[in-house]
Amino acid sequence: MIADFKNLIYAVEDEILTITLNRPEALNALNLIMAKELVRAFDLADADDGVKAIIVTGSGRAFCAGADLSVGDDSFTAARVTKGADGRSDYSDESVRDWGGIIALRIFRCLKPVIAAVNGAAVGIGATMQLPMDIRIASTGARFGFVFAKLGIVPEAASSWFLPRIVGISTALEWCYSGRVMPAQDAYAGGLLRSLHAPDDLISAARSLAREIIDSAAPVSIALTRQLMWRMMGAVDPMEAHRIDSRAIVTRSQSADAREGIAAFLEKRSPNFAERPSCDMPDFFPWWDEHSYS
Amino acid sequence: MIADFKNLIYAVEDEILTITLNRPEALNALNLIMAKELVRAFDLADADDGVKAIIVTGSGRAFCAGADLSVGDDSFTAARVTKGADGRSDYSDESVRDWGGIIALRIFRCLKPVIAAVNGAAVGIGATMQLPMDIRIASTGARFGFVFAKLGIVPEAASSWFLPRIVGISTALEWCYSGRVMPAQDAYAGGLLRSLHAPDDLISAARSLAREIIDSAAPVSIALTRQLMWRMMGAVDPMEAHRIDSRAIVTRSQSADAREGIAAFLEKRSPNFAERPSCDMPDFFPWWDEHSYS
Amino acid sequence: MIADFKNLIYAVEDEILTITLNRPEALNALNLIMAKELVRAFDLADADDGVKAIIVTGSGRAFCAGADLSVGDDSFTAARVTKGADGRSDYSDESVRDWGGIIALRIFRCLKPVIAAVNGAAVGIGATMQLPMDIRIASTGARFGFVFAKLGIVPEAASSWFLPRIVGISTALEWCYSGRVMPAQDAYAGGLLRSLHAPDDLISAARSLAREIIDSAAPVSIALTRQLMWRMMGAVDPMEAHRIDSRAIVTRSQSADAREGIAAFLEKRSPNFAERPSCDMPDFFPWWDEHSYS
Repeated sequence: MIADFKNLIYAVEDEILTITLNRPEALNALNLIMAKELVRAFDLADADDGVKAIIVTGSGRAFCAGADLSVGDDSFTAARVTKGADGRSDYSDESVRDWGGIIALRIFRCLKPVIAAVNGAAVGIGATMQLPMDIRIASTGARFGFVFAKLGIVPEAASSWFLPRIVGISTALEWCYSGRVMPAQDAYAGGLLRSLHAPDDLISAARSLAREIIDSAAPVSIALTRQLMWRMMGAVDPMEAHRIDSRAIVTRSQSADAREGIAAFLEKRSPNFAERPSCDMPDFFPWWDEHSYS
Repeated sequence: MIADFKNLIYAVEDEILTITLNRPEALNALNLIMAKELVRAFDLADADDGVKAIIVTGSGRAFCAGADLSVGDDSFTAARVTKGADGRSDYSDESVRDWGGIIALRIFRCLKPVIAAVNGAAVGIGATMQLPMDIRIASTGARFGFVFAKLGIVPEAASSWFLPRIVGISTALEWCYSGRVMPAQDAYAGGLLRSLHAPDDLISAARSLAREIIDSAAPVSIALTRQLMWRMMGAVDPMEAHRIDSRAIVTRSQSADAREGIAAFLEKRSPNFAERPSCDMPDFFPWWDEHSYS
Repeated sequence: MIADFKNLIYAVEDEILTITLNRPEALNALNLIMAKELVRAFDLADADDGVKAIIVTGSGRAFCAGADLSVGDDSFTAARVTKGADGRSDYSDESVRDWGGIIALRIFRCLKPVIAAVNGAAVGIGATMQLPMDIRIASTGARFGFVFAKLGIVPEAASSWFLPRIVGISTALEWCYSGRVMPAQDAYAGGLLRSLHAPDDLISAARSLAREIIDSAAPVSIALTRQLMWRMMGAVDPMEAHRIDSRAIVTRSQSADAREGIAAFLEKRSPNFAERPSCDMPDFFPWWDEHSYS
């Protein structure tokens, strides 16, 4: 456990990092401190080979009740929107960036499996920040609300890219148009959740899924698989996937991990993979140019 | 109700526009007049702040039985396909454009929520014109048929973009290969429909969904959400969504609607939004260059 | 039946080609011979107007147990990965290409409906080679495993493009992270399969689906529909679909097949389509530039 986080808890046990949003008195509403700490937590996790899976949950009775509205318009941006010579606004300044999107894109780039364990209310950014996580499981008492249009704003955190891909365009629009806060059962029926659990079983279910993954898979394979799958979701043509996975197959099948994986398979035992994301990623990784914001 | 439509009924009540395809004697088969009137109806709806949601349904026992085949090959195109010097056809002339696609793309650009209330047979263009509508509900007596290959032609109205995204590629291909006309229950099982209703309850179910949206959401938020979600369905990278929703968040969170939305939330009352799509869209809207046909 | 295939059986009956992976003593594990024969089988099928649908199944008790591991690292590639002046590897050589991807992209380009009839274990490339097939049905005794990370490698055959589009990103990642080998019932629940069948009914179910398609649809319409749907899955904008389907509508609605299709419809009889993919594709086909590998 790293002690200097203020609004979240960062705790590693049995190679599983649990990130707990931790402002229970405010239903874990996201403020600027928590936003920056979330980004830092994912930075630390990616750099630490001792972390092989990540669970995100909330402290107390909520998961995250949204952005903290108590501090007014300036809580997240001190946005500098100036007008150009043509009278139109210039939105290129970094200060315009939505913090929800900064968090979502950081999770998108993560190299470890990410499981959301939704213990209670997940509203606004509390709902959209989950979308770039790989798998969502929830307590039967959780609630979900994409309440943006009800507040006069819009779905953020790049959720217009993520949500229709996860639940389909019709469900995504209905949830965002109505802004209704719905029980976990409706979110499950709509395809947002993998499974529902009794409140007391939620964390153990998340840990057991994380455990299955850690005990099975090579960490370098996980990191490559995660980025391949998420990034090819938006690729125009399967040839793009073929170009990259060909490189991955040729390099990984000559790796120490592949020898160990095949040996373990033939010997019917658990594999013991030695290669690490911090130093053993193939030299074509990353294969993409990170798109700049402006 | 606007009286000069010939093949559809355009009627606004309680801020809900109902567009009724109205050639019941021909099972509402689409002819050129109806096609042009559909485009005009959506133009009128987008320009009228008094319209806050749109329902599309059919008059009589069908929704729309397809393109009107009774008038021969020239019903929809007087296509000018000339051969170039290389002997290949030149398809760039606007006269080549499929009317189904013109309608579909017009609905795609719409700024209001669009609900299809499918009251009966929906075949050919009667099925594909629904795909860019946000939500489809149907009578238990409705039928659906993607009959193009059975007629020697192909799925049109840009349905090759829409259908696999809504029902998945396997279901889309099976429906289009077989051309089978199926009961609403099969369309529901395949993911095409949000819900099934007794025939007499269909319109009231559509109106009550429209009502929920109108009573909840800021119209400018709806317009931005609709375009964000539909357009990011095809975006390569979530960064594209982040660029645009950051602009939307910074402008909308400083808007009168956002102040009203937050006040209503804190005071536990219904919001009363004053901003209007006709004049209050942010200055980055539209953020895309409309792709030309040729 | 074409006799000179060594590791698969190529048999046409009633216009249905059945490709049977045929190394039952090795659970139909894919070796280089079978890989090349699969590509050739699809080449032959596309060129033969007598083939109107394709079923792919396995001989004996497995569908395909993966890549043949018995022959060591060099079974599929004699990959030439050289280092450039910058010390990074050069992956552009054709020898780097993953054979799974070569097969998958060949199936992707196919002009006939492709049905996987999964009779038993489908593991590794045995699972991923099915993804570009249009429809998958399975025996209740089949099993599926995306076991790559467990072997220290990564999902191949462009499956990072296909799998999330078919079963959603969360299910795709869970299956690939865990590498678990699951019963057909789980694959069905996850959306990978159209339907489950008793082992003895599997082939007849596949044939009856193929029959329905052949008896309904014009072969040229099928070929256009298949490429439209698969390729527009990755298209950024519905305008791309509109551009192509407009050309298809204008040419196909003036075709002999369209006259026959409409006549058959009006006369309430089965259509008898004369046009053939080998010679009657419209002159805008193919409308795409095939992406090169390097």
